[in-house]
Amino acid sequence: MRPHIIVNCAMTADGKIASVARRQVRISSPEDLERVKALRAGSDAILVGVGTVLADDPHLTVKSLPADKNPLRIVLDSQGRTPDRAKVLTGGVPTLIATAAKCIKTWKGAEVLRCGERQVDLQCLMNELERRGIERLMVEGGGETISSFFEKGLVDEYRVFVGSMVLGGTDAPTPCGGPGFLEENSIRLRLLSVTQMGEGALLCYEVVKDAGQPA
Amino acid sequence: MRPHIIVNCAMTADGKIASVARRQVRISSPEDLERVKALRAGSDAILVGVGTVLADDPHLTVKSLPADKNPLRIVLDSQGRTPDRAKVLTGGVPTLIATAAKCIKTWKGAEVLRCGERQVDLQCLMNELERRGIERLMVEGGGETISSFFEKGLVDEYRVFVGSMVLGGTDAPTPCGGPGFLEENSIRLRLLSVTQMGEGALLCYEVVKDAGQPA
Repeated sequence: MRPHIIVNCAMTADGKIASVARRQVRISSPEDLERVKALRAGSDAILVGVGTVLADDPHLTVKSLPADKNPLRIVLDSQGRTPDRAKVLTGGVPTLIATAAKCIKTWKGAEVLRCGERQVDLQCLMNELERRGIERLMVEGGGETISSFFEKGLVDEYRVFVGSMVLGGTDAPTPCGGPGFLEENSIRLRLLSVTQMGEGALLCYEVVKDAGQPA
Repeated sequence: MRPHIIVNCAMTADGKIASVARRQVRISSPEDLERVKALRAGSDAILVGVGTVLADDPHLTVKSLPADKNPLRIVLDSQGRTPDRAKVLTGGVPTLIATAAKCIKTWKGAEVLRCGERQVDLQCLMNELERRGIERLMVEGGGETISSFFEKGLVDEYRVFVGSMVLGGTDAPTPCGGPGFLEENSIRLRLLSVTQMGEGALLCYEVVKDAGQPA
């Protein structure tokens, strides 16, 4: 069985995950940051797209856990654009970079998985994670990565913290980018909980799977 | 004193007010539609941008109220693009179309206010509404209109219903479009309430006004 996949992100009250300048903005409250830490600690792997690595350069580590108990860090990086000095390659925590088959780039400090012709084949990556015993995968973004997981029917839960600010911007990134879905193909969610958390609100959903959607 | 201004909209769990095709999508739950009706009925005027008129052709009437008790309908329409057959011109409820000064278009069934050189000057429009005794204005969208109200510091409350679906799409419209704000100029909100409403969640905010923001 493929891992249970939880998409987790933070957006503003007008649906933005960053400003038009794509600079990282503090949207989460301190309470939410604690929640995200716990969610990471309870995951076997944490995945981001290379866009997030290039924009935010995250560590993706859980500092409260010893390095060998940290979740596997995974970067979706079809063309091999992760910089050699990216923080996701440091800290003594294992990192897996998934690239397309044609990419020949290698990194010191990361294992590489080649799968998919021009883009990383997510199903192939999930098969590999299953083989490794990864049962719980957290997808942290960005919007293009989250979009590709939804598109392939690979999301089980969606959790979004809504921060109390408005960033605006027609070109500002949102939690789910990509080509988008028309209404008849939209992803249907079931609202599991609504919680005020400090200055914001946490909304937790499960994805409604029906005959029309891939399992 | 200018009217008290409430922005009200519905977005998906990934921050979209419509799909990439810009087609109107049913995001609100039946409970939310009732809430919006009551909010309209308690307003002295309801405002939308001409983009919303062109895309959705709304009536903007409250059917439970007699025509002469309905809120004034206002269209923000700098270049005079409201079609002569738009539903917002029908139903026997007064309609005000605000255009830029140079626009010469007139409509049967609507009063016209010319204010602002190339774009409607919102402050001038607010002065006119104040003169008419409008105390409570509801702004229903779309994203460009909402953006211009935030930009001018003209929003007192922001209410957003978050529907349980994901539409995705880098180019799909969000509750606040326009040029966007950088983090230091972002609009700060105070979360007043978080409520589960049927299949979705209603988030109500007031805008935090400080020395740096226009009153």
